[in-house]
Order: sequence, then C-alpha cells, then structure tokens
Amino acid sequence: MEVILGVSNKHVHLTEEDYKTLFGDEPLGVVKELVQPGQFSSDKKVSIKTEKRTIDNIRVLGPLRSYTQVEVSKTDSISLGINPPMRNSGDLEGATEVTIIGPNGEVTKPCCILANRHLHINPNQRRTLDLLDVDKVKARIVNDKVTIFEDVYIKEDPNFTLELHLDTDDGNGSMAKTGDMIEIYK
Amino acid sequence: MEVILGVSNKHVHLTEEDYKTLFGDEPLGVVKELVQPGQFSSDKKVSIKTEKRTIDNIRVLGPLRSYTQVEVSKTDSISLGINPPMRNSGDLEGATEVTIIGPNGEVTKPCCILANRHLHINPNQRRTLDLLDVDKVKARIVNDKVTIFEDVYIKEDPNFTLELHLDTDDGNGSMAKTGDMIEIYK
Repeated sequence: MEVILGVSNKHVHLTEEDYKTLFGDEPLGVVKELVQPGQFSSDKKVSIKTEKRTIDNIRVLGPLRSYTQVEVSKTDSISLGINPPMRNSGDLEGATEVTIIGPNGEVTKPCCILANRHLHINPNQRRTLDLLDVDKVKARIVNDKVTIFEDVYIKEDPNFTLELHLDTDDGNGSMAKTGDMIEIYK
Repeated sequence: MEVILGVSNKHVHLTEEDYKTLFGDEPLGVVKELVQPGQFSSDKKVSIKTEKRTIDNIRVLGPLRSYTQVEVSKTDSISLGINPPMRNSGDLEGATEVTIIGPNGEVTKPCCILANRHLHINPNQRRTLDLLDVDKVKARIVNDKVTIFEDVYIKEDPNFTLELHLDTDDGNGSMAKTGDMIEIYK
C-alpha cells in the first residue's frame, strides 16, 4: 500500500518547564499544522550547542510534551561532533547531552537522539492493513535513486494517522520529499 | 560479493587553469592517498558560494583534471539553495552555477552536481564478478537501519579498483561509513 511521507528536519520538543526557561512567558504560537493530529510547527526556534559547534534556527514543534528531546540527522550529529543513539521518540536512554539556547535562557541535558524510521498508524489502520503481526515494515522509494528502507518501526496510537517519517539523510539520499506517496510492505 | 565502501563528503575537482586562478603558483600537496590509484585528498580547501550561502573548508581532490566539478549532497544543495542535477562524474550537462573561492581568486561556472551512486571497477574485475551484462548494481547495507540502494552505476576504467561510492546523505542515512564491507548484487 502507499502512504504519505513526511521528511523530518532537525527539531526540538520541549517540556513546559524547559520552554519557560528558554522563552519565558511568551506563548507558543502555531505556524503550521502537521499531518499528525494536534502536532504543529511552532513560531519558536532555538540554537543547539555542543563543544564543537552551535547550530541556529532549529524549530520547536508543539504542543509541549512530557519530555525535552532534540532530534537530529546523522549528518547534523557529525557537524555537531556528537554521536547520539538511534531511538524511538520519547526513549532517551543513552541520549547525548546538548545545550538548548533560547532568547530567555538555556537548558543542558542528555536529550539528543537520531530518530528511527517510523510509520505512524492507528489501531484501525493497522488492522485494516494487516500489520498486526509485525513491528517493522519496509518502504520503497521509486525514482532515479531507487531505495528500500527496511527497519521502519510501527508507531501505533489511537490519535495517529497513517504517515511515514524519514529524517533528512534518508529523505535527501533517496530524493524523497514530504508529500510523496511511498510504497510500504511487510 | 562484498566490496569496500567509500563515503564521499562534498569536494571539488579543478582544472589546472582554475587551480591557478584560485591558488596561484602554490603546489597542490598530497594529504592522503585515496583508494582509487593516483587519487588523493589534497592540502587545499575552497569555499563554495551561491546567492543563498557560502560553505567553507571544502576539500580539493587531486590530481588536477580536464574539468572543474563541485560534488555536493542533496542536503548540502538545500543548504546552498540550489538544485543541481544527479550526474556521473565528468558529465556537467545542466550543472548548477556556483562560485568557487580560493585565497588567490575565484571562479564562477556551471559545475555543481550531485554524484550518482557508483561502483568503481576495472575490466578484469567486471568480468570475474559476472557484471558485463549490467550497467547498474544494487548494494545492501546491513546494520540497525538495513537499506538497499538500487541504481548504483558501474564505472569501469583500467585504472580503477573495486570500490563502492556513496555520498554523505546515503552513507549517513544508512549508518554506513568509509571502510565498511558492503554486499553488492545484480
């Protein structure tokens, strides 16, 4: 079956506490609704600082969450001089310490990961698409650089809608972009 | 069969004329021999400038060639705000104009491409490995992010030795690195 693709650039999720440290009492504004219901690209940006380098203009996604997390690509991580583990979003086991800098303050904590390839799906879609028996699928990009991505983790939640997420390394390497329809299979 | 992988970061090849414009009479020194016989990472770096941005510290590879060519990844090209075509090295049809800046001067010409995935091979190896009947192969990266790269172009020359070349988007996306042994097949 074909699903819509979202290519995720490096971005940040924040707890309410860390948001206040970084931005004070400014409200978190919505710039663009994302495909996953309730998720949005916000009007706030931060800098990420490591011993080697600082990268500016990294988008904060909303709404605020129960954890602070910085998601970068492997290419970004090499530029930053760090070696974060590949994780499911929300799993910060072994995450790399970085400093997040906002206009009002900064936060330093072990919160930087490489997000794994994943498929957002809700229980109904998972049943309908006959994916109850697997925890990973494959995705095939068809263009001048045909690429098969295995190890696409299934991420199920009643609030999700069907969407494949790749980071910019996988997306740019395979010349795939947000909005492309991508074949997935077991 | 398995072949050694080389992940190519963005780099520049120069003609003698353009080299002299950029570096004057300074000799082109060898920093490190590359896997392909006679090719080397040089002691010279340039900046690449577009309307949107300048990226510094881009390595010049040696020896000098009959064409000037800037090879970047899709991620680099987005950062530079350009949309170069995917090409075989040396095929500059439709290449994007960029400005190359050295300590002695600068050169502006349509010379920027995305290099395709390719396999360096010599005629003996191609015969031995039963690859005479194809012009492309596939490569399979096996790790926590299993990836199959199709559209790996065969690049044959008597001076070549067997080596798979991927750019940093494909290499970093699949967590593969220079020196890894990679399975290729028809």
